[in-house]
Amino acid sequence: MSTATRAATDVAAMRRALELAERGPARGVNPRVGCVILSPDGDVLAEGWHRGAGTPHAEVDALSTLPPGAARGATAIVTLEPCNHTGRTGPCAHALVDAGIARVVYAVDDPGDHSAGGARTLRRAGVEVVAGVLADEVGAFLEDWLFAARHRRPRVTVKWASSLDGRAAAADGTSRWITGPEARADVHLRRAASDAIAVGTGTVLTDDPALTARDADGELFENQPVPVVFGRREVPSGAALERHPHEAIRMAGTDLAADLAELQRRGIRSLFIEGGPKLASSFLAAGLADEVLVYLAPALIGGPRTAVDDLGVATIADALRYDFTDLVRLGDDLLVVARPRAAAHHDIPTHGRA
Amino acid sequence: MSTATRAATDVAAMRRALELAERGPARGVNPRVGCVILSPDGDVLAEGWHRGAGTPHAEVDALSTLPPGAARGATAIVTLEPCNHTGRTGPCAHALVDAGIARVVYAVDDPGDHSAGGARTLRRAGVEVVAGVLADEVGAFLEDWLFAARHRRPRVTVKWASSLDGRAAAADGTSRWITGPEARADVHLRRAASDAIAVGTGTVLTDDPALTARDADGELFENQPVPVVFGRREVPSGAALERHPHEAIRMAGTDLAADLAELQRRGIRSLFIEGGPKLASSFLAAGLADEVLVYLAPALIGGPRTAVDDLGVATIADALRYDFTDLVRLGDDLLVVARPRAAAHHDIPTHGRA
Repeated sequence: MSTATRAATDVAAMRRALELAERGPARGVNPRVGCVILSPDGDVLAEGWHRGAGTPHAEVDALSTLPPGAARGATAIVTLEPCNHTGRTGPCAHALVDAGIARVVYAVDDPGDHSAGGARTLRRAGVEVVAGVLADEVGAFLEDWLFAARHRRPRVTVKWASSLDGRAAAADGTSRWITGPEARADVHLRRAASDAIAVGTGTVLTDDPALTARDADGELFENQPVPVVFGRREVPSGAALERHPHEAIRMAGTDLAADLAELQRRGIRSLFIEGGPKLASSFLAAGLADEVLVYLAPALIGGPRTAVDDLGVATIADALRYDFTDLVRLGDDLLVVARPRAAAHHDIPTHGRA
Repeated sequence: MSTATRAATDVAAMRRALELAERGPARGVNPRVGCVILSPDGDVLAEGWHRGAGTPHAEVDALSTLPPGAARGATAIVTLEPCNHTGRTGPCAHALVDAGIARVVYAVDDPGDHSAGGARTLRRAGVEVVAGVLADEVGAFLEDWLFAARHRRPRVTVKWASSLDGRAAAADGTSRWITGPEARADVHLRRAASDAIAVGTGTVLTDDPALTARDADGELFENQPVPVVFGRREVPSGAALERHPHEAIRMAGTDLAADLAELQRRGIRSLFIEGGPKLASSFLAAGLADEVLVYLAPALIGGPRTAVDDLGVATIADALRYDFTDLVRLGDDLLVVARPRAAAHHDIPTHGRA
């Protein structure tokens, strides 16, 4: 095979491996990974994917379909760098070496402390290793898992709906509906795409939210976020939360970083903070919001019920700075998406890599 | 002339009349009006425009350039319905009839109580009258004057800059700069396009604003808004305001509707409310904001210093409802333009004309 032909074959097989990866479970501690085994001539010998914690990794799943010796001299195309550690399954790097795989092509480096190093192990065993094929596509597919693996916590989105003047409710506490049906539908879609959805006990006591992801008819979407309740107050018996398909996770909320680390250990890779103002403000002030979603209604309310409380910003230089990364018209409303500003934007001198 | 040719001639002459109107003074109690006198064959016999209160109206200005009898049987093309009342000058409708004008074509109806009715007077005198030619263009050109004439008050724009959570300053009162240079430049352009710019005495005492419209180098634009200060507290001697090219107008601020009527009598057709929160909130709560401009910075501040105070909204159904009419990215910031929602959107039954 020419170099160009081989590169094209690698890409096509990686795209297939990504399709296989998508068959895995959307949630859980493990990433969704797919694997294709190619003969030296580029023919597909085997396919595999990971079906969730405790089941074989994609590489082992693919190899398991082949008779002994059939993978000798073959190429393994894997969406994620083969792991190097022994968990509930053996390290894939060793399994590939043992099967006689001559060449490994993968898309994305494994950021995990325990599992990374698979490429090094393979190279030391004389296997040719090619990294970065289709890295952007696979990286986007694994975004939440990669974030959680790198930061040892879920990716946190803080969301609120407010009037244009930043109020979440009128003086008497009423807030239905500040935003319109299009904005609410968008929230439900984003809930369905999140591993977990969090509120404070204050919101549970005040609003009795269902914390489910529903369509316009009130029907539950297939994917339901795990409800997480922060705070020490008791959830009253009979709360709507009790009818959620998933049992709620309780978090004290006194050490948010520790709480997030615990959520990551439980397989939560993305957390959608729904409120109220106190919980949202705690995450914002702690610098633990990776994305802010503000659904702005074309209304003014004034008065005391701001969507965001105190953030510990004493003077303007301490304001929490973001970048507007997206603006979406949703019916009469406007969704503003903001992400923490990179340090370089603050004119802070940087050394080495930006 | 065929009907089609005549219509094309009318439009071309009206466009010329609009050019003439633009030569008039941008500010004052009177509208800027242009007039072209055409012979029955469509040749331009005369041109005129209004140069400000106390000088001849456009029609009379044009007729004055012709020898007696020269306008007999001619067509007058005027941007605004000829006036019907005797002010500092005589009614134009009569002047046109007296000059033997056979046909009058105008763009926009005169909304004034005193002056309207010119078309009726002309028709009664046997003059053919055509209304509405180039009405949209001329209407846009006269927007502020028409608004003021119809509502007997200036068109009010309430502007503020805030963080995404609706704060105008940090806890210690510092606010320079929440928004970036592009947003500030936009504010100065809009100041220059306004007849007047208003602040409360609190803002004068706290910020000592210049209330001028300046370019990026701090140079004054040619058009400077008249500063208006609302409130009873004294402006300290030596305030930056004293160096403004226009003397400040003082308003008590206890009866905003009366204050606005007084400003209109003084020739102010557009008022740009710059703050602070108390003055802005007063205009908003009184339903006297025709346009709201919010310069949103990608920042969160939290805390007590909201850009908008209490608006008397006790419950969510009473929220002041607007429509987002424009969204403009200005550097890192976002300008959100909102206008009061038409009553129909509130599902309030309407009778007669909407």
